[in-house]
Amino acid sequence: MNFSSKHIESAVNAFATLPGIGKKTALRLVLHLTQQPEEVAEQFAEAIVSMRKNIRQCERCYNLSDDRLCNICADKRREEGTICVVESIRDVMAIEDTGQYRGVYHVLGGVISPIEGVGPEDLTIDPLLERIEKDEVKELIMAISPTIEGDTTTFYISKKLEGKDIQVSTIARGVSFGGELEYADELTLGRSIVARQPYHK
Amino acid sequence: MNFSSKHIESAVNAFATLPGIGKKTALRLVLHLTQQPEEVAEQFAEAIVSMRKNIRQCERCYNLSDDRLCNICADKRREEGTICVVESIRDVMAIEDTGQYRGVYHVLGGVISPIEGVGPEDLTIDPLLERIEKDEVKELIMAISPTIEGDTTTFYISKKLEGKDIQVSTIARGVSFGGELEYADELTLGRSIVARQPYHK
Ligand SMILES: [Zn+2]
Ligand SMILES: [Zn+2]
Repeated sequence: MNFSSKHIESAVNAFATLPGIGKKTALRLVLHLTQQPEEVAEQFAEAIVSMRKNIRQCERCYNLSDDRLCNICADKRREEGTICVVESIRDVMAIEDTGQYRGVYHVLGGVISPIEGVGPEDLTIDPLLERIEKDEVKELIMAISPTIEGDTTTFYISKKLEGKDIQVSTIARGVSFGGELEYADELTLGRSIVARQPYHK
Repeated sequence: MNFSSKHIESAVNAFATLPGIGKKTALRLVLHLTQQPEEVAEQFAEAIVSMRKNIRQCERCYNLSDDRLCNICADKRREEGTICVVESIRDVMAIEDTGQYRGVYHVLGGVISPIEGVGPEDLTIDPLLERIEKDEVKELIMAISPTIEGDTTTFYISKKLEGKDIQVSTIARGVSFGGELEYADELTLGRSIVARQPYHK
């Protein structure tokens, strides 16, 4: 593409580094910003820089957080004895949006996938096991995608907990099989948490 | 959406002000940036702020420009006697990408649309007429979308030039009717410029 402006070109290239944003879309976004007051572009940029500078992982659950503990872990009204184990923070958001869950979370950071070279040590499984040991956790709800990798991950974790006094559940599969959790509608996802099933290997 | 982080929330809201970017897409972009080094987010923001601060309109053709004149107007090898009249700078980019055109441009900033309240005075038509007067322009190529509003605009401009020694052409309509110029493939668009037709009212 011929931008006839180095400034436009570098802004387009910046947007085009983002996932799912091609050059044409990037150009549309940049041209929109050229039509806004300078302050609008500055506020946009500031929101991003400030977010990146201040965001961190919750020390307990690995959710993204503004503080040492995320606002779910910091909320005394949440049931600390129930941990919902998810792949990503998007799943935390999706489940929170249902308003059906009162426990806490643990974000694995992915699932075990030998093909993609992701082993248990690449995920936050060890911290999860330590947390279960320390915090008197009574129930683990595995809210993991119903894929081979997801099932492998659930199996691996439940195996590690064998002999321990803890209930491992999986969410009821009202969520369509093979579907990604974050795209499930709130009602289905909420119900599938309420109607969770004990996990049997 | 429940973000469990004020920083994430404000960055998502910032992205969601951009055209065509909904909250889900915005979240995907923000989560991507959380996974990048802080410098990447800073460079991204800097490219946008710097672009917005430094970009201006070419004083001659109203193309976006880094300087007083855009790099097309500043290029001595371009034929100044031929002006391609377009609606937006995206059309300039699309035509430049064909590599078929050696003249210069004039960006109208839209088309005459009584329904949307856009009159000739809202476009850069007066500066175009002054430019034609001053710069010994021999040909005006109207590369305007083949819509009612586009045709009205071409008619209005050609009417203003009546009695003047200037050829008014329209680009050959190999470009699909009703299609927007910027989405035409390079070959079609390039050929339609080469095979431009004299304009008859
Ligand atoms: Zn937390
Ligand atoms: Zn120019």
